[in-house]
Amino acid sequence: MSKKHILVSEVGPRDGLQSIKTIMPTEAKKRWIKAMADCGIKEIEVGSFVPASLFPQLADTAEIVRYAIAIEGLQVAALVPNFKGAVAAIEAGVHKLSIPFSVSETHCLKNLRRNHQEVIQEVAKISQYIAQLPVAQRPHFETSLSTAFGCTLEGVVAESKVLSSAEKLIEAGADEVGLSDTTGYANPAQVTRLVNGIKSCVGNDKLTGVHLHNTRGLGLANALAAIEAGIETIDSSMGGLGGCPFAPGASGNIVTEDLVFMLQAMGFETGIDLPKLLLVRDILKQALPAEPLYGFTPDAGLPKGFVGSQGS
Amino acid sequence: MSKKHILVSEVGPRDGLQSIKTIMPTEAKKRWIKAMADCGIKEIEVGSFVPASLFPQLADTAEIVRYAIAIEGLQVAALVPNFKGAVAAIEAGVHKLSIPFSVSETHCLKNLRRNHQEVIQEVAKISQYIAQLPVAQRPHFETSLSTAFGCTLEGVVAESKVLSSAEKLIEAGADEVGLSDTTGYANPAQVTRLVNGIKSCVGNDKLTGVHLHNTRGLGLANALAAIEAGIETIDSSMGGLGGCPFAPGASGNIVTEDLVFMLQAMGFETGIDLPKLLLVRDILKQALPAEPLYGFTPDAGLPKGFVGSQGS
Repeated sequence: MSKKHILVSEVGPRDGLQSIKTIMPTEAKKRWIKAMADCGIKEIEVGSFVPASLFPQLADTAEIVRYAIAIEGLQVAALVPNFKGAVAAIEAGVHKLSIPFSVSETHCLKNLRRNHQEVIQEVAKISQYIAQLPVAQRPHFETSLSTAFGCTLEGVVAESKVLSSAEKLIEAGADEVGLSDTTGYANPAQVTRLVNGIKSCVGNDKLTGVHLHNTRGLGLANALAAIEAGIETIDSSMGGLGGCPFAPGASGNIVTEDLVFMLQAMGFETGIDLPKLLLVRDILKQALPAEPLYGFTPDAGLPKGFVGSQGS
Repeated sequence: MSKKHILVSEVGPRDGLQSIKTIMPTEAKKRWIKAMADCGIKEIEVGSFVPASLFPQLADTAEIVRYAIAIEGLQVAALVPNFKGAVAAIEAGVHKLSIPFSVSETHCLKNLRRNHQEVIQEVAKISQYIAQLPVAQRPHFETSLSTAFGCTLEGVVAESKVLSSAEKLIEAGADEVGLSDTTGYANPAQVTRLVNGIKSCVGNDKLTGVHLHNTRGLGLANALAAIEAGIETIDSSMGGLGGCPFAPGASGNIVTEDLVFMLQAMGFETGIDLPKLLLVRDILKQALPAEPLYGFTPDAGLPKGFVGSQGS
């Protein structure tokens, strides 16, 4: 019987590096991305097309994209804040681009300096721009429902608002929505409700991925709930690097190493060589010696006699 | 509609303190236990009736039990390694006692210096001793299936061996078996299989609790799987204090603070005042200044607008 495949989408080079002060040298980024791809990581969000004046640590994103798309079998994703960023991302050759739509409008204004209506207009513009490209050049276009589980600024975010936002974004032309716990507020019951709710509203094929943080230690429990609800792509970050610069105290992505261990131990296929992946942390440690790296599995090591599920 | 109740069973004063070198003064233990009970923690494993020469940090267990049973509404549990320990625990007045049965016989011999047959004989002896007590004095008698998810010494532990061990222990007279991930090897799929398997073998009412570690970061995901499989009692430890001295590298219980946050966020009743519980960490920090305390929720704080489920 073939095992179910879960796609681990590595966001460290974008979400991780965006959240820290240290600027990782371009060559180190390339080494890191290549090493992860060599371990079987099949999708990496490599950067964000944001102004270099605001995020100097991501100023080399176009160069990184051009490097990464040459790696065979790697799906290269990037974040874009607006139409201008999307055009730059497409010119660089991304396979997938994602624009964040914060369901909390307060967070939306802080993050993108645009209100909901304005972001939806950007989504429509990007979608139209993609539609007129030759089919082979069209990237997959996702909008992520940020602060979907609550907001450090607004507090509780109504679930009905998340569902209606998902509908509006799909209507505006996004291929897909992603569900994002920007603030680390999510709990497993809420993950189940929102995944089911959004799928009911926009269709099963319009929500396949979640982006979860481990801010309150619930990251893997939330990932488990998401998988049980049919999610097939889980974002994570090597060493748990990352957070959101405009959501104070909301640091800490799910740790890729722990996520892969959980998935393989449960019998899911990830296509990832976990022992090899654990060694890639050294590249990160060398490039970012001052940054704390998270993760329990790297410290504890793999269980004695552990046989993970490998292969693609 | 009434919400489902999950019992959070605090094991810090036993599992936590047993694993560290520092000896917590008796008065500090009492303060800590009382403070947790005052927050609504309804069951605490307060110590272990082991030789003081081996575990000087638990030498005051009888005194702690006598103190704790005077706290109204608190279920007081203790670990015992053998018949002699059980008699001492019962004399001190415990409400619940637990003897570990390591499914890995190698670990069993290291931990209790007895093989499987010998531990089962102790279980039978304890059970017979309890049976001749007046009904009001009979404690609840549990045997925990240690190393049920794998062993740092033996490696993989066959699931069939866990099930047959459960059957033997219930036959020998234990009221209940507990399922214990002594080594932090468990994954959610395995938790589901073993909980369902044991319940099928010995009956639903003979397995109500799990003891999980967070060694590889999967603690709360495993707890979620256990709850979904019908488990109603989850062991945890304030600050994640603990591990097993005879399972190298297997430190780190589930953190009580993060577990309670997850349960309340999901809408389960715990009867615990979480903001108040977070303050109790100060007692632990003062008493054990050199010990690292784990937990994400204490660092991140509760979400803005968070309304947990309280009350009993």
